Amino acid sequence: MIKPLNPSKGRPGPGLGSGRRSITSNDVARLAEVSQSAVSRSFTPGASVAPETRLRVLEAARKLGYRPNAIASTLSSQRSRMIAVVLSNLQNQFYPVVIETLSQRLQKDGYHVLLFITETEDADELLLELLRYQVDGIVMASTQLSSGLAQQIADARIPVVMFNRTSLKGSISTVSSDNLGGGRAVAHFLADSGHQRVAYIAGAEDSSTNQDREEGLRAGLAERGLRVVARAVGNYEFERAALATQELFGGMLPSAERPDALFVASDHMAFAAIDTLRGALGLRVPEDVSVVGFDNVPQAAWGAYRLTTVEQSAVPMIEATVQMLLQQLEDDAVTRDHVVVPTRLVLRSSARLPRS
Amino acid sequence: MIKPLNPSKGRPGPGLGSGRRSITSNDVARLAEVSQSAVSRSFTPGASVAPETRLRVLEAARKLGYRPNAIASTLSSQRSRMIAVVLSNLQNQFYPVVIETLSQRLQKDGYHVLLFITETEDADELLLELLRYQVDGIVMASTQLSSGLAQQIADARIPVVMFNRTSLKGSISTVSSDNLGGGRAVAHFLADSGHQRVAYIAGAEDSSTNQDREEGLRAGLAERGLRVVARAVGNYEFERAALATQELFGGMLPSAERPDALFVASDHMAFAAIDTLRGALGLRVPEDVSVVGFDNVPQAAWGAYRLTTVEQSAVPMIEATVQMLLQQLEDDAVTRDHVVVPTRLVLRSSARLPRS
Repeated sequence: MIKPLNPSKGRPGPGLGSGRRSITSNDVARLAEVSQSAVSRSFTPGASVAPETRLRVLEAARKLGYRPNAIASTLSSQRSRMIAVVLSNLQNQFYPVVIETLSQRLQKDGYHVLLFITETEDADELLLELLRYQVDGIVMASTQLSSGLAQQIADARIPVVMFNRTSLKGSISTVSSDNLGGGRAVAHFLADSGHQRVAYIAGAEDSSTNQDREEGLRAGLAERGLRVVARAVGNYEFERAALATQELFGGMLPSAERPDALFVASDHMAFAAIDTLRGALGLRVPEDVSVVGFDNVPQAAWGAYRLTTVEQSAVPMIEATVQMLLQQLEDDAVTRDHVVVPTRLVLRSSARLPRS
Repeated sequence: MIKPLNPSKGRPGPGLGSGRRSITSNDVARLAEVSQSAVSRSFTPGASVAPETRLRVLEAARKLGYRPNAIASTLSSQRSRMIAVVLSNLQNQFYPVVIETLSQRLQKDGYHVLLFITETEDADELLLELLRYQVDGIVMASTQLSSGLAQQIADARIPVVMFNRTSLKGSISTVSSDNLGGGRAVAHFLADSGHQRVAYIAGAEDSSTNQDREEGLRAGLAERGLRVVARAVGNYEFERAALATQELFGGMLPSAERPDALFVASDHMAFAAIDTLRGALGLRVPEDVSVVGFDNVPQAAWGAYRLTTVEQSAVPMIEATVQMLLQQLEDDAVTRDHVVVPTRLVLRSSARLPRS
């Protein structure tokens, strides 16, 4: 069978068919019957090119198995169009929300997220990896890694933002929720709704999020003449939080001595606390114990928990993060800011309300 | 105050201090007092270099603000060391688990995940983006995008694996769970534990996962002389699944006509179904209705749900995905495989057990 001649396919460039390395933008231009500059513009983010031209170029590139020299365009623009996101895991349900929102936001500006999921404490090794990929910027969202790494990155003149944590050093941009204000709002709410004995389950002791939430709680309780009556550490982990709940409520406490409210430093841990209170300990939430979390992850609205919690607003936090990265990319001498996004208390049914 | 002389800092290379573009590996070699080749090897994955040499190079690079020419090394190796992962969102809790596991697994082989989170149906636009970044391989994990895009990627000779779905075309590698076997196991379990009226909440109608799970359910029920008595579509979405549950159970059904078991095509939807059954509809789970999910996400073990479900094993699914990508990278003529990972039923307390 004789195939019909297709003129646009009939004039392959030199080297065609001899392996993928020999295919050039010239070959693509010839097959698509456009100029070489049109091919180049078709593969350059933001460059002006007619949609039908671009589609022809794309089609030709696909047929030839041509991969545009993204690398050459990176060299000329000095941009890789990648932002690295460093975090230790995705178990806390706040982080999938952050990753999804951040990816979609960056994609609007022509960037993609390169993931570094690591629990390593070897900051040098991680820095080396980050340098290798020549990312345009870095979002440090891990609680486990010290701010020392962020400082090293800043020293290497790579745009960096610490997300959801603060740094003692002023030379690194940070974005966080108003953790202090959130903790204080929980204290006032619990006191004003008649709770007398407030317990606290802490996150990772060395994290700024935990420190600020606890400080806010203590300050707010003090303003109402109360104090934290019991405390255990959940380290932001589900299983540890279940154990912490056992530790706080599992003894032979007369009910008059038992805490009547529990503030948990993250929703992820609060779910474990509620499960443990209701299951192993046979206590009612909120009738016996009110539980308040922090984050307002999607699961906090689920019918089985209906968790009263402090909302961290992912969208404005991410918008601030992206703006700061882009500013640093434009001018690496820009002043480093510390953005604190307001929080708000979301009332559901895991905590008793004030009698009205 | 006169600073002490530091000989290793006293001989900066030419061009130092005149901006970051002028800093070369030569400058780094001079400051670190090593050969230029040692600098190059320090930034090459897998290259042999003494740890103390590497640390000195790293330190010098950091001090100078030097960013190694990852781009040049990419050009020479023809590898970007990036795998793109395309998916539509992270709302189903199975996907954060997949992203975390896949990232950590690929990092062991010196690759990182570049995220493409998109609900776009514009496959050309997405393909263009993927080509621009010159990724070494692509994992298509989205249910929304057609297998046509995967075929275009395969045509462009880029290694690609379709994850958690199958393709009618044999020329693309696929990894999925045994969705058919999982659906059948649910049918047998429900029939053998005395359920008579089984309802089904479907995922996205056009997805292979949904089709196979439903086909397995129907086949398994038929083998026990039963059939699906009612069906509604949840489209793998939480809110839609709540509505589907209302649709199936919300009418004025006499209890003899009400379904006594509900198989839901994903855990994510099953949580919504349980919340709706218990909350809005005032039914008990499992006394009035047994509920079985699919995925075994971490939340399925939470005390408030204790969901009986079919486990998809993320680790072997991801291992198969990575192996197939690496094989295609080595030899782009390698045979495309279709890996089906076994599933298993995990019994908890959301479904009644057989009377023993």
